[in-house]
Amino acid sequence: MSLLVVGSVAFDAVRTPHGNVDKMLGGSATYFAVAASYFTPVRVVGVVGDDFGEEHRQVFLDRGVCTAGLERVPGKSFFWSGEYAANMNDRTTLDTQLNVFAAFQPKLPAHYRQSPFLFLGNIHPDLQSLVQSQMEAPQLIGGDTMNLWIETTRPALERVLKGLDILVINDSEARLLSGEWNLAKAGSAIRSMGPQTVVIKRGDNGASVYEEDHVFMAPALPLETVHDPTGAGDSFAGGFMGYLASSAASNHATPRARMRRAIIYGSVMGSFAVERFGLERLQQLTREEIDNRYGDFRQLTHFD
Amino acid sequence: MSLLVVGSVAFDAVRTPHGNVDKMLGGSATYFAVAASYFTPVRVVGVVGDDFGEEHRQVFLDRGVCTAGLERVPGKSFFWSGEYAANMNDRTTLDTQLNVFAAFQPKLPAHYRQSPFLFLGNIHPDLQSLVQSQMEAPQLIGGDTMNLWIETTRPALERVLKGLDILVINDSEARLLSGEWNLAKAGSAIRSMGPQTVVIKRGDNGASVYEEDHVFMAPALPLETVHDPTGAGDSFAGGFMGYLASSAASNHATPRARMRRAIIYGSVMGSFAVERFGLERLQQLTREEIDNRYGDFRQLTHFD
Repeated sequence: MSLLVVGSVAFDAVRTPHGNVDKMLGGSATYFAVAASYFTPVRVVGVVGDDFGEEHRQVFLDRGVCTAGLERVPGKSFFWSGEYAANMNDRTTLDTQLNVFAAFQPKLPAHYRQSPFLFLGNIHPDLQSLVQSQMEAPQLIGGDTMNLWIETTRPALERVLKGLDILVINDSEARLLSGEWNLAKAGSAIRSMGPQTVVIKRGDNGASVYEEDHVFMAPALPLETVHDPTGAGDSFAGGFMGYLASSAASNHATPRARMRRAIIYGSVMGSFAVERFGLERLQQLTREEIDNRYGDFRQLTHFD
Repeated sequence: MSLLVVGSVAFDAVRTPHGNVDKMLGGSATYFAVAASYFTPVRVVGVVGDDFGEEHRQVFLDRGVCTAGLERVPGKSFFWSGEYAANMNDRTTLDTQLNVFAAFQPKLPAHYRQSPFLFLGNIHPDLQSLVQSQMEAPQLIGGDTMNLWIETTRPALERVLKGLDILVINDSEARLLSGEWNLAKAGSAIRSMGPQTVVIKRGDNGASVYEEDHVFMAPALPLETVHDPTGAGDSFAGGFMGYLASSAASNHATPRARMRRAIIYGSVMGSFAVERFGLERLQQLTREEIDNRYGDFRQLTHFD
């Protein structure tokens, strides 16, 4: 089933101990869309500037992603620049330029409004609400947010949370949003704000899902070399939501079994994302590679 | 099969957000022995002062642990005092008094020397070597260490490592010992120092095992309330080694399957340890509770 994502489509400059890239296509909606495209048809809503050329649009088209909702306006695209420490976990933002994103007012093409699956990527909660309000009757709504919105636009964020089925955030965001350091408690507290399902991404410690009477934990793949963590969390969300959308019509699995598989597919896509700079590895996967890695996660975690 | 442990038997003073205890029985060998006692016969080697009374020895005897190797000498027992931060992960050592431990020279009773399983708890590596040299032909030797010995007695520690089959340490120790931040790389580097198996404890992020061509990762149980993390790592090691010793004669499982089960039993015992202050919860378990919690770990991690 179709999956609509709204979020940033951007250019990134990244420095890691493995090298520097001055300008590469990135943004939360981009990583999400490319990762999800291996599972289900994807539609993207966002805004780009006139520095976004046909070669950049082609990245989406090559993965079958519909870009009818990707608005191109005069000016420069959103730009983010960051540097990773030697441990590849700590990162410093060097520069953020909103550019065309500053005046972004998402408008959904008519055929987008009936998408059964929606993911509200990490943008201002008022823009998330604006997208949500244009949808007709989505089956399932997932969303992400970040420290900036938790700290500066909390009432707007709380309105968004009330309408979410699933919130996908990282551990520090979960702690900030809930005021609880313990992640099990944070999961409960966030569920009381709206979403029935809270997925907490814990970087190289894996990912967890918290639902009523249901907890599931997945590790991260123990990769010896991480080239570039940029986009790993968005790729996780793309794999996760992509699998949920692809399996929605299936009667062969319980909701819990589907949720667990979705977490593992998310972890798989996150693990591929960090193996190369930017989108490089994610763009050239095969379904066989994805399913083999799914098997690697089983090998890593199962016992008798 | 019998499991011999050498390590500290101590009194602890602990402050956590859930309360304070001024003096309770603790020490690495104590937690290890009590946890391991649910799986296999345990013998303990250590030294205590004349503040160690019959009621303290009874804690070991109630669990069937042999204390013939627990030497009692004039003076005060080893004392440790610490305080946990609100997040229950960061801890500050307030006081350490070696007392009778300063002059400890372990001497194994005759019947201890044939123990098939040995665990060298976290003490000065020269003392670990002294215990190891008195053993006749142990089947399997596990060991632990800490930042202090890695930083101050590295050559002695390297001699111990050469003789270990399994090293069980926490993530910060693994990073310090190997010089690698990435834990997969740290595991490889430490294996090149001697032990074929490296078990890395990651606190509330779980535990991992690194062997040649074999990696396994277990989460920590997502407890909403942690009362006292003291001894969790030693209880993990006790459950882990205890299960390995108990299953050594079994032909019903491959070495990898046994190793995975051992990591889960270690995780189970660590999860019980933190539920109450000190040894309180560990002393009163049933095998049924242990096996039920083993099942909880399966529920937490398995997918189809």
